[in-house]
Amino acid sequence: MRHSERGSFDRETVNAILDAALLCHVGYVLDGAPLVTPTLFWRDGERVFWHGSAASRALRTQAECKVCLTVSLLDGIVLSRSAFNHSVNYRSVMLFGTARSVDDSGEKLLALEKLMERIARGRWGEVRQPTESELKASSVLWMDIREGAAKIRAIPVGDEPADRDQPVWAGVVPIMTSLGEPEPAAGLASDIEMPGYLSKIRLS
Amino acid sequence: MRHSERGSFDRETVNAILDAALLCHVGYVLDGAPLVTPTLFWRDGERVFWHGSAASRALRTQAECKVCLTVSLLDGIVLSRSAFNHSVNYRSVMLFGTARSVDDSGEKLLALEKLMERIARGRWGEVRQPTESELKASSVLWMDIREGAAKIRAIPVGDEPADRDQPVWAGVVPIMTSLGEPEPAAGLASDIEMPGYLSKIRLS
Repeated sequence: MRHSERGSFDRETVNAILDAALLCHVGYVLDGAPLVTPTLFWRDGERVFWHGSAASRALRTQAECKVCLTVSLLDGIVLSRSAFNHSVNYRSVMLFGTARSVDDSGEKLLALEKLMERIARGRWGEVRQPTESELKASSVLWMDIREGAAKIRAIPVGDEPADRDQPVWAGVVPIMTSLGEPEPAAGLASDIEMPGYLSKIRLS
Repeated sequence: MRHSERGSFDRETVNAILDAALLCHVGYVLDGAPLVTPTLFWRDGERVFWHGSAASRALRTQAECKVCLTVSLLDGIVLSRSAFNHSVNYRSVMLFGTARSVDDSGEKLLALEKLMERIARGRWGEVRQPTESELKASSVLWMDIREGAAKIRAIPVGDEPADRDQPVWAGVVPIMTSLGEPEPAAGLASDIEMPGYLSKIRLS
């Protein structure tokens, strides 16, 4: 991830990358050491939200904590004719800011609904709603999309002219993420059809 | 990523997850704030190595720095009958330790060879080797696999018995990562065949 990187914070680019991913990696500082936790996240307007149970230790000693939320999508392996010019195609966003906890139960409910709707539009109204104690056990954090960088590499092999006669295959091997065939839960009633939203989950 | 998590540091489990992934997220602390960078990584025995250009700022002020290297593979979306029991299937490893830089050019060359062999076995001998200045421009870091946690969720929907009559589809939607059709570089000589290793890149 060294070459042809273009750092920017164009909001449309940032949002497009955030909206394409399900998983982010959130970095915290705990007792002076870094902690990076993978978690589901979702964007709601100018904010990103995520499940933050791993942040509870960081938040216990402080109402707010500094975070770096990073999203990356690996799109391809770039095989060039020289060892040095090998690279990957990818899209990534780093967001810097302060994590805040969603404490109000009404706001938390709304946030969790947004998460589910991000993945499976229409499902929230079908499932059993959270109880008060389930809501308490759910930890939701958020931060503003305000400071950070988007980086994209989406170009072919970048060989030096002098290397173009090297007798080796060169090119890009794309990497794709896709949904498999849904596996119904044991005991699912036979009259329950597979909802259409299952095949529409946005993954990249 | 809340339910049925099993944290362990069984070395075989840890190695299997590390060996399945190409991308990791490395967390550093810079001026008291977290920084999480996505980068290619590879395992060599009891160590992990990664491209560390983003660490240069952290390493400039200190010969070694604390890092958290996290690898995660998202394997499926777990749709249960209650909002609260939704989850994801995944495999993840967090490694905690100290990052060290590979400075010796012979060692760096060997490390970069291991990276390429991780991705495309047999390719190192085919490509143009790095020059002295290319080697200098490559930044390779490593840490011991010594402290951390592996977490795996690889089980079906975990609904409460009371929720099993909720009239909604429940189950797991698998997520798969795969290689697309390789795209040859412009101007690739027509007598250069596609190497067999291209279809064997381990992605998950």
